[in-house]
Amino acid sequence: MPQTRRKNTRLQIGKLKIIPLGGIGEIGKNMTVLEYEDTIIIIDCGLGFPDEDMLGIDLVIPDTTYLEKNKEKVKGLFLTHGHEDHIGAIPYVLRSINPPIYGTPLTLGIVKNKLEEFNLPMKPALKQVKAGDIIQCGSFSVEFIHVNHSIADACCLSIRTPVGTIVHSGDFKLDLTPIEGEVMNIGRLAQIGREGVLLLMCESTNAERPGYTPSEKTVGQSLEYIFRMHPDKRLIIATFSSNVHRVQQIINASVNHRRKVAVIGRSMLNILAAAIELGYMKVPDGTIINAAEIKNYKPEELTVITTGSQGEPMSALYRMTFNDHAQVRIGNSDVVVLSSSAIPGNEKTVGNIINELAHKGIPVIHDAALAVHVSGHACREELKLMHAILKPRFFMPVHGEYRHLLAHRDLALEMGMPSDNIMVGEIGQVLELTPKSAVWNGRVEAGSVMVDGNGIGDVGNVVLRDRWHLAQDGMVVVVATIDSYEKTLISGPDITSRGFVYIKESEALMNDVKAFTQRIILDCLEDSPQDRMTIKNQIRESLGQYLYDRVGRKPMIFPFIMNI
Amino acid sequence: MPQTRRKNTRLQIGKLKIIPLGGIGEIGKNMTVLEYEDTIIIIDCGLGFPDEDMLGIDLVIPDTTYLEKNKEKVKGLFLTHGHEDHIGAIPYVLRSINPPIYGTPLTLGIVKNKLEEFNLPMKPALKQVKAGDIIQCGSFSVEFIHVNHSIADACCLSIRTPVGTIVHSGDFKLDLTPIEGEVMNIGRLAQIGREGVLLLMCESTNAERPGYTPSEKTVGQSLEYIFRMHPDKRLIIATFSSNVHRVQQIINASVNHRRKVAVIGRSMLNILAAAIELGYMKVPDGTIINAAEIKNYKPEELTVITTGSQGEPMSALYRMTFNDHAQVRIGNSDVVVLSSSAIPGNEKTVGNIINELAHKGIPVIHDAALAVHVSGHACREELKLMHAILKPRFFMPVHGEYRHLLAHRDLALEMGMPSDNIMVGEIGQVLELTPKSAVWNGRVEAGSVMVDGNGIGDVGNVVLRDRWHLAQDGMVVVVATIDSYEKTLISGPDITSRGFVYIKESEALMNDVKAFTQRIILDCLEDSPQDRMTIKNQIRESLGQYLYDRVGRKPMIFPFIMNI
Repeated sequence: MPQTRRKNTRLQIGKLKIIPLGGIGEIGKNMTVLEYEDTIIIIDCGLGFPDEDMLGIDLVIPDTTYLEKNKEKVKGLFLTHGHEDHIGAIPYVLRSINPPIYGTPLTLGIVKNKLEEFNLPMKPALKQVKAGDIIQCGSFSVEFIHVNHSIADACCLSIRTPVGTIVHSGDFKLDLTPIEGEVMNIGRLAQIGREGVLLLMCESTNAERPGYTPSEKTVGQSLEYIFRMHPDKRLIIATFSSNVHRVQQIINASVNHRRKVAVIGRSMLNILAAAIELGYMKVPDGTIINAAEIKNYKPEELTVITTGSQGEPMSALYRMTFNDHAQVRIGNSDVVVLSSSAIPGNEKTVGNIINELAHKGIPVIHDAALAVHVSGHACREELKLMHAILKPRFFMPVHGEYRHLLAHRDLALEMGMPSDNIMVGEIGQVLELTPKSAVWNGRVEAGSVMVDGNGIGDVGNVVLRDRWHLAQDGMVVVVATIDSYEKTLISGPDITSRGFVYIKESEALMNDVKAFTQRIILDCLEDSPQDRMTIKNQIRESLGQYLYDRVGRKPMIFPFIMNI
Repeated sequence: MPQTRRKNTRLQIGKLKIIPLGGIGEIGKNMTVLEYEDTIIIIDCGLGFPDEDMLGIDLVIPDTTYLEKNKEKVKGLFLTHGHEDHIGAIPYVLRSINPPIYGTPLTLGIVKNKLEEFNLPMKPALKQVKAGDIIQCGSFSVEFIHVNHSIADACCLSIRTPVGTIVHSGDFKLDLTPIEGEVMNIGRLAQIGREGVLLLMCESTNAERPGYTPSEKTVGQSLEYIFRMHPDKRLIIATFSSNVHRVQQIINASVNHRRKVAVIGRSMLNILAAAIELGYMKVPDGTIINAAEIKNYKPEELTVITTGSQGEPMSALYRMTFNDHAQVRIGNSDVVVLSSSAIPGNEKTVGNIINELAHKGIPVIHDAALAVHVSGHACREELKLMHAILKPRFFMPVHGEYRHLLAHRDLALEMGMPSDNIMVGEIGQVLELTPKSAVWNGRVEAGSVMVDGNGIGDVGNVVLRDRWHLAQDGMVVVVATIDSYEKTLISGPDITSRGFVYIKESEALMNDVKAFTQRIILDCLEDSPQDRMTIKNQIRESLGQYLYDRVGRKPMIFPFIMNI
């Protein structure tokens, strides 16, 4: 860049806006917006899983109202890797914005699969990159840098902007003995650090955990041990479908021990196909067999790799465990390995699987007993390494609940960063950056959009509150027809309930409710015959109190009074 | 016992039945029945917490049908300690059986409090014992033996029966430096072991955890460190209300550091009062202040001890955290300590508290960072000690999910017990014991009785399934009045929904639903005017399909057709 131009730029320099739309104060739905003048680029577009109180909700995506309003500025979506919490919201967000999508081959392979499932009318331009590539995009130039993670082909991003260099870590760990491919590109990051980094956005998932995350290779040693200890059993191994390296290690151990491998679970088959095609996995010919062929092999000749390591009730492992799977029924000749850890919130569902298998007398090996899983995220010492080589001026902890963000902030303080340079924000807050300053300034619309069935955002707090109320104590419907002119009850009241009491065993109660409600209606007709609203309110109140006194529950009460 | 009588007994010896009614294959609702000829005694009578899929259920108690049917045989209920999972079902079970209840002073103190709250017509005989006491009860003689646990006054039971000695561990740990009172009575247990133990029933909560559980005293060291590090802050410390020793240590540290102590939370105040009265706690006069006095003290002069360490939404800590507590509002001059660990299933609610406080910038110290909590249950080496000193002939692992029971079984195998002598059962299974044999033989009614409001057992699977369905997709009510003679629709259809879509923003949908339903009714009237059932079924089916196609949800549909 010639000296003169740089001078000019410096004179007219604007402010860079960084707007996290997800992944701050929460695990999942990672999405970050960078905006400079008329260019917006987006880093990742992930989904989140619903909280326990979001009854009936399938998943959660970021609120992208701000992007829709600035649609014409959006020049590119840059993906760090192919996990759902980084790419899963793409099919939903595409309905309102449709920028070109940049990602590495495996990442885009997974995105492509996903888009085909959704069969959307809009087809985004998928632009394949590889680690080391630099993409020019309006005022930005985005460099993909190789990192290690629990999925292949993961990158962090170094983004040159008019105000300085921004590094976004994506999800990463430092694996000095990776299964396939290179160690995280520390050299390039150090070089960028020497050139000067204005802001580091760094993931915080394991910011509370001391030390280093062990190498993926350690899991291989545990697997080898398990294979050696159980030469006469069929091994059923559950893991995350996207963990290509884990699957590779299970296949390696199987090949060593002359076992065939059956892969069960649609998501795993999809990713496996993509990974083999793109050269991220090496599987000797004849190793993998179809589920239908399982019956042709003895237990000791087989490894079954499957999804469902979180105990999800529709997953392959769950169905195998509860004797509901067509090809695999877990029995006495099986050993089950959960090569995974329970994602917070899933402890109970994972426990259900372990207990059911224990109850059947099937040995289950999980991470409490043997190192059959390692995290894909950097622990504290690895995070420190990232800070140390990049030496950023400003730092924003991202990807974590507040506890993780604050642990990461404390880590930066420990390393000597001034407290004022650490920007802990909220989603929707706008960070304005100049070459010398970082200031939170204003907010844009942001939050969680709930997806339920085909509906995107049509379920809100009112609906959730009703679902919660219905789930607690059920509902009672009262229907009656009156003749308000004659002051008579023509038919009903008919009483129906669901989720309240077991009707067949509560006949006496339901008869009393009918008599009680009848009295309310007749009394009301006497007093104010024209006013159906009064009758309804009276039923809601008096019957509600009656039921609470009698049963100690507060069902939703729905009175319908038809007037002839 | 004179030689001759023993001889006679031996000639006419019968079988002893052991029937676990709870606590096997589950955490909580511990209850075990011992039956010999015309005597039944019961060990513990605890409650359990509902699974996630038991929507709206308050708690779960054991099915005691078997005891009701054998009411006249039941001679005593023996309590090992005062935790809810050992005593919490007493007020419910008392409605059908009412044996004398034996327990140590603190245990009975807590039971008494509980019974007063319930205000039942039946008053059980509460028979106070102390460790070392032996109670004769029909064919049984029950000895209370002191153990360490996370509540004071805990005992295990050694029960002499006509077929041999049965030991039930209760909940225990080995604490060589207990806060108050003695180390677990290893001497007496060893003596009993030398005399011969036919069956050991031993708790399995920590059977997966290696090593020893640290002494309660180690928490005192962490507390001392926290008090020294935060001399200018108010300390708000949450712990389990029944952990008298923990509360004692917090009070000790407060006294050392010249702080007053406010105790918040009804259950904690109750237990504290009982513990002080019975001499289990030593609190210098003037240390404890009322909640109302908190405002008179500076932050550095105060410690607040509170309930809510599991993040329960109605608890004191939750309300303090979310600014909804009358006396305590957590702010910048506070440090919060969670002196507890998350009970499995509560990780998310505990996380909510930690995150909210982190978000507000309040330091939170929890067991991830500092040893502010220890378990009350024996780890593997302590369990081995119990096995080693008692040398039982038979062994039944109790108090645990199947994973824990099997881990405990494997521990016994490791110690050389023959596999056939280890009895892993299910609740309701009957273990028949003679001096030389142990055999599972038959079952009695057993299971979970759900308590919801005032109802005990009136909510079953049908009601739960409806609640679940309502919670997933909500409900739609259709009401119409027809004249089947004239084949006309007189009024309606009126459509109401809850938990389905946000009605105010779905007017178009609701109008379409109305029109669609009207068409169904009119078509039906044309075809089969007399048949309201057909109309209802048609609405359920066609409208269900219509809504699924359009919104991707399956609400419960309730059609009411009134005929004039």
